[in-house]
Amino acid sequence: MTTTTTQGSLIGGRSVTGTAGTVRGVDPRTNQAIGDEFSLLGPAQVEEATELAHEAFATYRSTDPETRGAFLESIAERLESVGAQVVETAQRETGLPEGRLSGELARTANQLRLFATVARAGDYLGARIEPALPDRKPLPRPDLRQVKLPLGPVAVFGASNFPLAFSVAGGDTASALAAGCPVVFKAHNAHPATSRIVGQVIADAVASAGLPPGTFSLIYGSGSTVGQRLAADPRIKAVGFTGSRSAGVSLMETAAARPVPIPVYAEMSSINPVYVLPSAIRENAGALAQGFVGSLNGSAGQLCTAPGLLWVPEGPEGDRLIDLVIEELTRTCGLPMLTEGICRSRINGEHHIVDVEGVELIARGQEGDTENAPAPAVYRTTAENFRHRPELSAEVFGAFCLIIRYASEDDLLQAVGATEGQLTATLHVDPEDVQDIRFAQDLVTAVQFTAGRVLFNAWPTGVDVGDAMVHGGPFPATSDGRSTSVGTLAIDRFLRPVVFQSTPETLLPQSLLDSNPWHLVRRVNGEYVLPATQ
Amino acid sequence: MTTTTTQGSLIGGRSVTGTAGTVRGVDPRTNQAIGDEFSLLGPAQVEEATELAHEAFATYRSTDPETRGAFLESIAERLESVGAQVVETAQRETGLPEGRLSGELARTANQLRLFATVARAGDYLGARIEPALPDRKPLPRPDLRQVKLPLGPVAVFGASNFPLAFSVAGGDTASALAAGCPVVFKAHNAHPATSRIVGQVIADAVASAGLPPGTFSLIYGSGSTVGQRLAADPRIKAVGFTGSRSAGVSLMETAAARPVPIPVYAEMSSINPVYVLPSAIRENAGALAQGFVGSLNGSAGQLCTAPGLLWVPEGPEGDRLIDLVIEELTRTCGLPMLTEGICRSRINGEHHIVDVEGVELIARGQEGDTENAPAPAVYRTTAENFRHRPELSAEVFGAFCLIIRYASEDDLLQAVGATEGQLTATLHVDPEDVQDIRFAQDLVTAVQFTAGRVLFNAWPTGVDVGDAMVHGGPFPATSDGRSTSVGTLAIDRFLRPVVFQSTPETLLPQSLLDSNPWHLVRRVNGEYVLPATQ
Repeated sequence: MTTTTTQGSLIGGRSVTGTAGTVRGVDPRTNQAIGDEFSLLGPAQVEEATELAHEAFATYRSTDPETRGAFLESIAERLESVGAQVVETAQRETGLPEGRLSGELARTANQLRLFATVARAGDYLGARIEPALPDRKPLPRPDLRQVKLPLGPVAVFGASNFPLAFSVAGGDTASALAAGCPVVFKAHNAHPATSRIVGQVIADAVASAGLPPGTFSLIYGSGSTVGQRLAADPRIKAVGFTGSRSAGVSLMETAAARPVPIPVYAEMSSINPVYVLPSAIRENAGALAQGFVGSLNGSAGQLCTAPGLLWVPEGPEGDRLIDLVIEELTRTCGLPMLTEGICRSRINGEHHIVDVEGVELIARGQEGDTENAPAPAVYRTTAENFRHRPELSAEVFGAFCLIIRYASEDDLLQAVGATEGQLTATLHVDPEDVQDIRFAQDLVTAVQFTAGRVLFNAWPTGVDVGDAMVHGGPFPATSDGRSTSVGTLAIDRFLRPVVFQSTPETLLPQSLLDSNPWHLVRRVNGEYVLPATQ
Repeated sequence: MTTTTTQGSLIGGRSVTGTAGTVRGVDPRTNQAIGDEFSLLGPAQVEEATELAHEAFATYRSTDPETRGAFLESIAERLESVGAQVVETAQRETGLPEGRLSGELARTANQLRLFATVARAGDYLGARIEPALPDRKPLPRPDLRQVKLPLGPVAVFGASNFPLAFSVAGGDTASALAAGCPVVFKAHNAHPATSRIVGQVIADAVASAGLPPGTFSLIYGSGSTVGQRLAADPRIKAVGFTGSRSAGVSLMETAAARPVPIPVYAEMSSINPVYVLPSAIRENAGALAQGFVGSLNGSAGQLCTAPGLLWVPEGPEGDRLIDLVIEELTRTCGLPMLTEGICRSRINGEHHIVDVEGVELIARGQEGDTENAPAPAVYRTTAENFRHRPELSAEVFGAFCLIIRYASEDDLLQAVGATEGQLTATLHVDPEDVQDIRFAQDLVTAVQFTAGRVLFNAWPTGVDVGDAMVHGGPFPATSDGRSTSVGTLAIDRFLRPVVFQSTPETLLPQSLLDSNPWHLVRRVNGEYVLPATQ
């Protein structure tokens, strides 16, 4: 007989036992509970973490670029040093393959290092200086110096589908910490042990950097009680979330109903339409079919950017592509999904679509040989049917796609005009085909207003983490299309501008001193000035 | 007998008669109705304007920097060409003095020209380029190019207190148009004739530039019906508002409850605390008292940044300052307020404060010699009483201020910690006084997290319009402290980022071409590159 240890939340580096029951990880490949038990906080216990975060903010917000950069790098290094344990634990809790999780670990460390660079460079501070013009007519101009400040403690909610890169030390945590905001992280209950290891890594980095303990807390609890309480807590100043549309919308409602409303950055729901023009099929039908099925079934389709809608022209090119898709798809095998619940939603989602008139199955792969591994499936319908049945636009999370056959360019343009906000939109077109390119120009002009990322002759899964990425998009892809949750611009979510007017030098922040000790790019009189030339 | 003409809304350049009654301007100095009658739209009529704006967006969003810049300049020129008529009309409708309105007209034209510069320079596009790295390990990097897009049609609500600079052709209109967003402007019913002249100016500029008529519409209607309907209209993608807290919060609620929520930029309520340290009084007591009373009573105190809270130390320096304030204030005379309703609110607001225990009148000026010109008034209370009575933090719009006597630095720091969000916070301190400066450092560190602008040895009224200004601040100063409604950064409110991945050159927007035809500052591989060096 093995004894199960019960672990608590990690509040300011200290283990706190929750009063609202326990949860254990479950291997989705077997539906067997595994590893330690984790006690869940009662809603009132959330305040221990938010109060500490509030206290920590007074110190952490004033840390200099080097301190913040070194702190983020230290999290990355510590994470890598326990990498094998993290990957092994995550594998058991998520059923994701080792290679995918090792890659995700590397990406998570890289994200932390990227935000260390961001913290050190300080471009995000948006420093702007307008020196006084005492002789300006009709009125003198006072000395004005603008910089961006961190909002305050941020509540971050971990995603199920990226147990590392969108979880405890993931992108939201990295960007909030880089901005100068303490983080209270609510672990996703589908990977509690993975979360605990990574949470300890951050708590150790906080302690070792001599930062206030409340700079980071990891809490366990129910989303509908503890999560809502966290979003409602007056000490929390912003929310980062990745998950379902219903949970995201519920957080938006809670945040909007507070006496002092706060921003919610929820990444929620996207079916990532892919528009295939005839010229792309003529060039590349085999690679297209292969690329599509690989993008569809990778990670069991549990990626926010998985292609859920494929627009294929009527006529012989489209027929040919579909034949090839059928061929590829029947060779695939279902992969284990993250949880029994997610698998159930995937199957129910397919049932809802099957019941819609005018929709038919094109092809299905094999079921996987573990629990919770439904067969990848592709259905089809007509553009007209799709137009009249909004239920066909609902996201089915998993390896599931609806192919729409379109008769004319007008079909596509109409569909784009009626589309909900998306994380991505993809065009496949031969750049040498004059007619298709002319049409693609119209299509791109329209499609960019519906999505955060527009891709060409590529597949939307796989999100590069750098300076130019946008992982966002209009509602319901996210709650706030003015932002991105991936890439350096993500830091903007946790900042607001302030201006100092006629300020004695002894009272100016370092970022705005004439001597520019942080070597910042700044705008002076409305023009960018690089640090070398200041 | 004179006949009254009835004018309509100006929807896409065409006059549309409203079905929901009429309104006329009123001279607040006499309470006499003046000028033409304006018919008010019924809520359903709003759709004529939003539908036209929606149609116009498809064209207007794609205009190039030069077109947009020339359009904004042409509005400025046309506005100046009818300047005398505008100022005269506004004077009759608002009771504001000619000098103030001439200055406001110049500012309004300058704002339009500033945003013409912004539109032409294109820094706001935030172009970022990461060229493909086909050999990067473990994965190649695709070509990624980020740029910012306009959100869509914006509903703007005019303020009563700036009939030009925060009204029809004011800052919100200028920044939205510069961003590429059509504007549906709801006129403030307190200056309908002024609004109509300026609306015609913009409609003429639209027609003359060959832009779609729906690029701009001016509508008249009730805030609670037409205004709410406008904010709920699915074709409207953002709201700009300046006015009362209750109206702003009501727009926030409407926007959050839409099937697709949208951002609301409401500038609402601020009492603009001023903290006077003893050293400032020792240096400059007379100028301080004069500056304070001038800032308090200018424009009858009807400025969003008027000082409503003055922290004065206990002890002889503070006593001296207060004696001088009494002297200055008793010499002042009430100026006519903008409307009978605003005057009534001012008087009621004072009554509420008078009824609070521990609050006493310090001094009062004279009533003005017109209607609606209440006497400026200053009250006082203790820091402790202020701390325990949150009702003392409510804004009383007008020439009204509460002086708080504080005993210690701790009194101030506690007050700052408990303060609601503010547009401004001001410190008066002698930069040569070592002890006060040391304390001011702590105070500034705290105070910057409560306000959008922090000033030193100056008065908060008067907002310079340039590249570094922030006219914003945490709720309830504004609905969204991440933004500013004055200065070039205001354009960010109406934009969101999109990234183009692996895009054929023929499908890239001009802003992201390698050849950089718009001569933009862009970030390449995470570093700013100035156009000259690209």
